[in-house]
Amino acid sequence: MRIVVLTGGIGGARFLLGVRTYAREVGAEVTAVVNVGDDLLLHGLKVCPDLDSVMYTLGGGADPERGWGRVGETWTVKAELAAYGAEPSWFGLGDKDIATHLVRTTMLNAGYPLSAVTQALATRWEPGLTMLPATDDRLETHVVVSGRSEPASPAVANSAGAVDGDQGQRAIHFQEWWVRYRAEIPTHRFVFVGAETAKPAPGVLAAIGSADVVLIAPSNPVVSIAPILAVPGLREAVTDGPAPVVGVSPIIGGAPVRGMADRCLDVLGVECSAAGVGGLYGGRPAGGLLDGWLVAPEDEGTLVPGVTVRTAPLRMTDETATVAMVRAALELV
Amino acid sequence: MRIVVLTGGIGGARFLLGVRTYAREVGAEVTAVVNVGDDLLLHGLKVCPDLDSVMYTLGGGADPERGWGRVGETWTVKAELAAYGAEPSWFGLGDKDIATHLVRTTMLNAGYPLSAVTQALATRWEPGLTMLPATDDRLETHVVVSGRSEPASPAVANSAGAVDGDQGQRAIHFQEWWVRYRAEIPTHRFVFVGAETAKPAPGVLAAIGSADVVLIAPSNPVVSIAPILAVPGLREAVTDGPAPVVGVSPIIGGAPVRGMADRCLDVLGVECSAAGVGGLYGGRPAGGLLDGWLVAPEDEGTLVPGVTVRTAPLRMTDETATVAMVRAALELV
Repeated sequence: MRIVVLTGGIGGARFLLGVRTYAREVGAEVTAVVNVGDDLLLHGLKVCPDLDSVMYTLGGGADPERGWGRVGETWTVKAELAAYGAEPSWFGLGDKDIATHLVRTTMLNAGYPLSAVTQALATRWEPGLTMLPATDDRLETHVVVSGRSEPASPAVANSAGAVDGDQGQRAIHFQEWWVRYRAEIPTHRFVFVGAETAKPAPGVLAAIGSADVVLIAPSNPVVSIAPILAVPGLREAVTDGPAPVVGVSPIIGGAPVRGMADRCLDVLGVECSAAGVGGLYGGRPAGGLLDGWLVAPEDEGTLVPGVTVRTAPLRMTDETATVAMVRAALELV
Repeated sequence: MRIVVLTGGIGGARFLLGVRTYAREVGAEVTAVVNVGDDLLLHGLKVCPDLDSVMYTLGGGADPERGWGRVGETWTVKAELAAYGAEPSWFGLGDKDIATHLVRTTMLNAGYPLSAVTQALATRWEPGLTMLPATDDRLETHVVVSGRSEPASPAVANSAGAVDGDQGQRAIHFQEWWVRYRAEIPTHRFVFVGAETAKPAPGVLAAIGSADVVLIAPSNPVVSIAPILAVPGLREAVTDGPAPVVGVSPIIGGAPVRGMADRCLDVLGVECSAAGVGGLYGGRPAGGLLDGWLVAPEDEGTLVPGVTVRTAPLRMTDETATVAMVRAALELV
């Protein structure tokens, strides 16, 4: 049995813990296709938050309290960068984490594609599944917000600056919107910079094409799953492929389990509910993604046209609960 | 009064402490022209050991025990790089130190020359004198040693590889020779890669040309002072300039005060003595550098043709002793 999971964020990484355990029980192979829209350059380092969340979580190195980054992390470099007045100061890189970014950046600068670098880093962490970035190309989620650009700083390599033709609007990197502004500024839309010319990373289309099932993790639909599907050919590989597609709702009882999916959905004018996200993905018969949609018991009665909806407890309180979620998702098709 | 100091290494940085104190007493301006031959790329970071030794030592951030690097340093990133198997593993970068290299590398990649980056970093450390790299261009000290090259690793950006036409010889970066091999391998010669086309950094020639005195710090003559003088035009600015030139011997009683100058001198076939180094620099009347040569009392009787030789205690046990050394050097001319 071959399982492909589209995933991003911390919820997605935790979901993969359950997928891996389930797969070991039944002897299945798992391929995680991971969002790269959150990736950014910080202090010259290529940071890939979603790939690292998967790698650290599955490799036993993630901080379970904080949710992101490394357990036992220290912050010496961050304090020193602040002492130099180095910008951006709103994104904190831990010392352990920085070593990952140094190795990655060195390999990328030596010409290795991100997928090869990810594989090399994974030899240390042994995640127990195949981790693939959605694309090896630059595909960054930027956010168009109100307001004029601040003066450019040479240290901020990710600011997209003013948006042509839009008076009073500017585009900022997703991480600036998310981490610096906590998504609390007037926001107009999301842009996946580079999506037009990005190609699926090696192995992505083959994995989807030979999958027995495609799972959509309970990740943020707007900024974790949508950037994956924005890679030309990737969405079509899922919708036109042989495998049934089952999504797991990241919204329980009208609120995101974690993170700020509500703010992202609000920008799109989509209701923050299991039905809202299910409708955003859409049913396969109508050109959408989903054959099945797993929602929480709190959301029983959720309807998505053309999609089989079932309920199961969706809080990933421990691995046993997560495995049960995965099993329920797979039993849906 | 204007004092220019040619300097490199830890001894040079400590000498500058005395120069700064003396200069404050008499109201003099100090410009340190610092060796860049030790600089290297490590894990994609531009590391400038001599500039940093000056900056940390004069800024009060150096580790007084270890002699190099930052006081209160931690080594989290180094341990993590080792866990990834990242090479080179023989050069340890501390966490605090890494922040300096991140800021420097980001600015260099943004197009700022090393001299401007050095000035920017110095705004934090306030060294109390003008720090200038000898050159903004790449000028790296490599060492031609016996033996065949090891297989290239993408992480080792500094290996010069095999030496053309020299069977059984290869060139390695000075730091690899010094730190990895402790200078304990058969060694043929030193090469200053890039010296032919390097230009003095902005301000260097002007500082030398308007100096009232040029001091040569008690640094390693072969790998700290020689690479500075290898920048075309720089040696001539000193020898043809108006200022008298006084050197301070790094050798006391036939042994280097610190470091491995003996091994470097041995490669050149120069005796490890105050007379040997004085002769290597040479007297100005004979086309050499020196008007004056300050040696330790242990080396009384040292003769260098055409050079005024005096004795003074040369052990920099504390700042008072170092200031006395500086005064003795300046009184020599």
